Amino acid sequence: MDHDIPEIIIGRLPIYLQALEHMLSQGIQTTSSQELGEAIGISAAQIRKDLSQFGEFGKQGKGYSIPYLVEQLQSILHVNRVWDMVVVGAGHLGTAIANYPDFNRHGFRVAMIFDNDPQRIGTQVGELVVCDAAELEEAVRKANIKIAMLTVPAKAAQSVTEQLVRAGIRAILSYAPLILSVPKNVHVQYIDPIIFLQRMTYYLE
Amino acid sequence: MDHDIPEIIIGRLPIYLQALEHMLSQGIQTTSSQELGEAIGISAAQIRKDLSQFGEFGKQGKGYSIPYLVEQLQSILHVNRVWDMVVVGAGHLGTAIANYPDFNRHGFRVAMIFDNDPQRIGTQVGELVVCDAAELEEAVRKANIKIAMLTVPAKAAQSVTEQLVRAGIRAILSYAPLILSVPKNVHVQYIDPIIFLQRMTYYLE
Repeated sequence: MDHDIPEIIIGRLPIYLQALEHMLSQGIQTTSSQELGEAIGISAAQIRKDLSQFGEFGKQGKGYSIPYLVEQLQSILHVNRVWDMVVVGAGHLGTAIANYPDFNRHGFRVAMIFDNDPQRIGTQVGELVVCDAAELEEAVRKANIKIAMLTVPAKAAQSVTEQLVRAGIRAILSYAPLILSVPKNVHVQYIDPIIFLQRMTYYLE
Repeated sequence: MDHDIPEIIIGRLPIYLQALEHMLSQGIQTTSSQELGEAIGISAAQIRKDLSQFGEFGKQGKGYSIPYLVEQLQSILHVNRVWDMVVVGAGHLGTAIANYPDFNRHGFRVAMIFDNDPQRIGTQVGELVVCDAAELEEAVRKANIKIAMLTVPAKAAQSVTEQLVRAGIRAILSYAPLILSVPKNVHVQYIDPIIFLQRMTYYLE
């Protein structure tokens, strides 16, 4: 039944999950679409409509059991397991991301980090040693890693992407400020601070 | 007429602007809502409806003049000027962001960077010198800076936010993995890699 669910709905599920996990961490056990909607700025009707695509999670008038809904959303999003990831680019951004403390709690683990700079290869980043980018393709394929985070300079991003695709990577989180060309079965998400800043300047002045 | 435009529409305008600027950089001068929609995965009808909130930008059957629409979107989003910004936190992430090469072309400039670590204060980050966080409030107020990027550890994020708000900051881009409490007239956007990763794991396996 999941086949035709619009990407925009899938895009909201992690936001629901994050807010619900936050409530749970504060000891809250049940919530309503109204309460959840107020916490994240999405209408209660939209939340009910989105969730109804995946089944019946709340009881009429009784709201949602947060532990149950968290479990269901984790299962829908396939994060009720741990995904190994590779970071490509061991500069300041790659180092910051490889050390990001919250991955483990949310279904992710940085398993490898690569760079092509001889000054960086062999150095320590958190608990990992920076590997030579020349070995990326073989190492990623062997380890059967499906997710990559890309923090290389813009001019290297497309060629690294092609290596990652050849290595079997199916999802790329890119911090490079350009649109990557990938086959249809590879997913890309972009983190671009400019988009987020421009969403706020509208309200300034 | 802008008063009641939903936040979700405002949130899409920077995505339109980015795609249009990309087309322009490739020498393309006109486009249609169909073509733009295909480039960014949003329906043509949605794009037309969003833009119609702000006026009449295309001619029936002739599509949009990209240079004109870019100019209009920049004006709507208030990025047809340069906004000075402050970075708080001069670790790996703050250093990466302060050196981000694309701000200047998009209406932003990193004017100051702060940290509270004596080892970092006085060191160089790109063209800036890291200032003592103890001076943040006064310096930001004096310089009349309205936008901050927050790259401090989670445990410091709320108290730094309160300093920023007292200093007159009106927009915060936070990389800290928690929800900040701010007054109603202060805008916050969060960059959390987990949200973006979970949008892709849905499609894996």
